[in-house]
Amino acid sequence: MEKLIMKKLINNPNDLVREELEGYTAAYSNWVYLIEPNLIIRTHSKPQGKVGIAMGNGPGHEPAMIGFVGEGILDVNIPGEIFTAPAAPRILEGIKAADRGAGVLLYIANHAGDVLNARLAMDMAQDEGLNADSVILWDDVASAPADHPEERRGIAGQIFPFKMAGSAAEEGLPLIEVKRVAEKARDNTRTLAVALTSCMNPVTGEMMFDLPADEIEVGMGVHGEAGAGRRKLGTADEIMDIVAERVINDRPYVAGEEVCVLINGMGSTTLMEMFILYRRLAAILKSKNITVHRARIGNFITTQEMAGFSLSICAVDDELKHFWDAPADCPYFCAR
Amino acid sequence: MEKLIMKKLINNPNDLVREELEGYTAAYSNWVYLIEPNLIIRTHSKPQGKVGIAMGNGPGHEPAMIGFVGEGILDVNIPGEIFTAPAAPRILEGIKAADRGAGVLLYIANHAGDVLNARLAMDMAQDEGLNADSVILWDDVASAPADHPEERRGIAGQIFPFKMAGSAAEEGLPLIEVKRVAEKARDNTRTLAVALTSCMNPVTGEMMFDLPADEIEVGMGVHGEAGAGRRKLGTADEIMDIVAERVINDRPYVAGEEVCVLINGMGSTTLMEMFILYRRLAAILKSKNITVHRARIGNFITTQEMAGFSLSICAVDDELKHFWDAPADCPYFCAR
Repeated sequence: MEKLIMKKLINNPNDLVREELEGYTAAYSNWVYLIEPNLIIRTHSKPQGKVGIAMGNGPGHEPAMIGFVGEGILDVNIPGEIFTAPAAPRILEGIKAADRGAGVLLYIANHAGDVLNARLAMDMAQDEGLNADSVILWDDVASAPADHPEERRGIAGQIFPFKMAGSAAEEGLPLIEVKRVAEKARDNTRTLAVALTSCMNPVTGEMMFDLPADEIEVGMGVHGEAGAGRRKLGTADEIMDIVAERVINDRPYVAGEEVCVLINGMGSTTLMEMFILYRRLAAILKSKNITVHRARIGNFITTQEMAGFSLSICAVDDELKHFWDAPADCPYFCAR
Repeated sequence: MEKLIMKKLINNPNDLVREELEGYTAAYSNWVYLIEPNLIIRTHSKPQGKVGIAMGNGPGHEPAMIGFVGEGILDVNIPGEIFTAPAAPRILEGIKAADRGAGVLLYIANHAGDVLNARLAMDMAQDEGLNADSVILWDDVASAPADHPEERRGIAGQIFPFKMAGSAAEEGLPLIEVKRVAEKARDNTRTLAVALTSCMNPVTGEMMFDLPADEIEVGMGVHGEAGAGRRKLGTADEIMDIVAERVINDRPYVAGEEVCVLINGMGSTTLMEMFILYRRLAAILKSKNITVHRARIGNFITTQEMAGFSLSICAVDDELKHFWDAPADCPYFCAR
């Protein structure tokens, strides 16, 4: 891979995660605070009786996941190192920190390291007699066939189970019900991502992959994992036609359904472009008689300064609409 | 300037603004709608008795300003063409659309084209007997000396008068008071920006300026206007030391004061980097016995995919703290 000047505003790459967590919690001390071992904890939590929700992940995808600690989503985030899942003993500490007496649900993004460490942490939690359960989240249609969803990666569409199960917990539902909502939201969601450029690993200074100046990668993962193939850059409408068809047909989403939609920016793609993409999507969905309940467009799960976007669609019934619309108050996800 | 492949997801560059407005208002139809001539209107507004707030600007800086139409900030946005202010007759239409019977305040970013067209629109409004007033917003310390603030450009620190006067209007204050709050917030605010990379004009496909791979530009404007000079890239802490000292000394902000802080990303700078920058800023302000009331970190007024950030500081008393903290519900600015 190419070696370029790292034009990022950091100090020592080895201190990256600690320094960003210190800065983040200093800026948003009304919402979150930092405790050892590098856990991000929600400041205001219902004292008892609420199911706690925790998640571990490799940083480098900000605002995910630190930005989603707060009312309506996460109680605790357990960041690992850049693009690296936290170790099991730290996840266990996070589960304990999230426990308010009604049990804890641990979200696990479906990536090998995250799943391995989280399963080990769940074993440790059970050995200690904690009331904890977990749900593995997947949504990326490019990473495995539709009849093997459990082999698919967890990417931006995780936002739907995050928020929907988060609000279910907020409203006092018991652990088994919060898990059911998370699984329902996951099973109703499909995502496909497109990369226009690569990006630099902030620790090593290496480009994460190579991509020719006039090509795009369809279906790449959030760490630049290879996707469904490369093609020449097209217009916004041409690219959305390809992405939307693949996402809609995978489940499939059908006439008469209601959906929530997320267009997630990978880092350096402008909102201007994402609004133009959404314009085409809205026309496609309308032509198929699929109704958009709500849309969100922005940078939720990024990969450094990568250019590109992903489209996520989640089929919603009255229950999921209610939980998606319920209030949330996190530094990077607010709903009123 | 260099001519590269334009790797942006657009269709015909001439349709850019119209298409982004159609997509934006389709996505956020609960908050905003689009009327001719390309005006973005707030969906839910107090029917009568609220001072209307309108602003024209050149798009290309999303989420600014279309993303700030909603409760607590703007009632109407009048987008021009990319990086180009709207013509006076369209601004006049925007003023009329914002009028709910209690007068209209027009925000004007201090850039030559914006000021010229807005003043002409204000003359036309007066000729028609409309109850409208305006406030020119400036904050960029790099663009003129401290004793000529009226020659300074309006950049990211405009967010403070936007929100504070917006909430004053929301609470029912009369036009003269809303204008006073906007001027007070403006006069208490200072901003300095740093560019790490250039970016591409989405209409022409040309890079907006040139910047060597190992240099940064301190004090550039939001269209790449030249700033206070170039220097070699340093660590995050070194760069923040330079920026913070210049911003703090300009007013100056002094021991015992309370401030609100904004770190604004220019487009492709990661939140990870901005959190690390904020960490240093928090330490600097603490060492000077300046208290941070609230901080916000994110992409508010961008310049396409430019890398870089700006620091804005606003001195706040009880009144400005109240208006900053008041609820807001816009697609890209939410406060609870």
